[in-house]
Amino acid sequence: MSDTPYYEKHVFFCLNHREDGRPCCADRGAQAAQEHAKKKIKQLGLNGHGKIRINKAGCLDRCEEGPVLVVYPQGTWYTFVDTQDIDEIIEVDLVGGKVVERLKI
Amino acid sequence: MSDTPYYEKHVFFCLNHREDGRPCCADRGAQAAQEHAKKKIKQLGLNGHGKIRINKAGCLDRCEEGPVLVVYPQGTWYTFVDTQDIDEIIEVDLVGGKVVERLKI
Repeated sequence: MSDTPYYEKHVFFCLNHREDGRPCCADRGAQAAQEHAKKKIKQLGLNGHGKIRINKAGCLDRCEEGPVLVVYPQGTWYTFVDTQDIDEIIEVDLVGGKVVERLKI
Repeated sequence: MSDTPYYEKHVFFCLNHREDGRPCCADRGAQAAQEHAKKKIKQLGLNGHGKIRINKAGCLDRCEEGPVLVVYPQGTWYTFVDTQDIDEIIEVDLVGGKVVERLKI
């Protein structure tokens, strides 16, 4: 790992939409979840350099396990069902520094 | 870091397009660079689980330094001018495991 990370936690939500019949994160509430997370981190004043960044991403290629997000540089992958799951990931992992085992993939 | 990373190198290119006057990666060749990297990694047979993933991302919020990409879980950030720079990042960092100091931001 090089120096101090630019973001302490850099979160990428897969927002990919597929039309080939494979499951995709976009069909499973990924966009609403990303927007919810981004808003909440901003409300908490935790967004920005040295802190937390909530990002959109293209296909992370774990479609069958979706919707998925990944937290770097820790490399922790999560799935989620609703905004309550997102709140738990924010509270326990992004803020608390612990892994949410029940949502980890 | 948790367990073995799902991707050894997970690369995110900012492809964001701004219309508010601030500089943006999309205006500086980011899409062509991302496509070039994705194609080359596939040609080398280095794409996939346990190996390398080249990803699209929304705004990484380092607009003034763009175009930018970040390599996780190492957390190395780069800027680039053309596909020759991308080739150097692939060869030296993604394959060779060393940082390209002249392009690092």
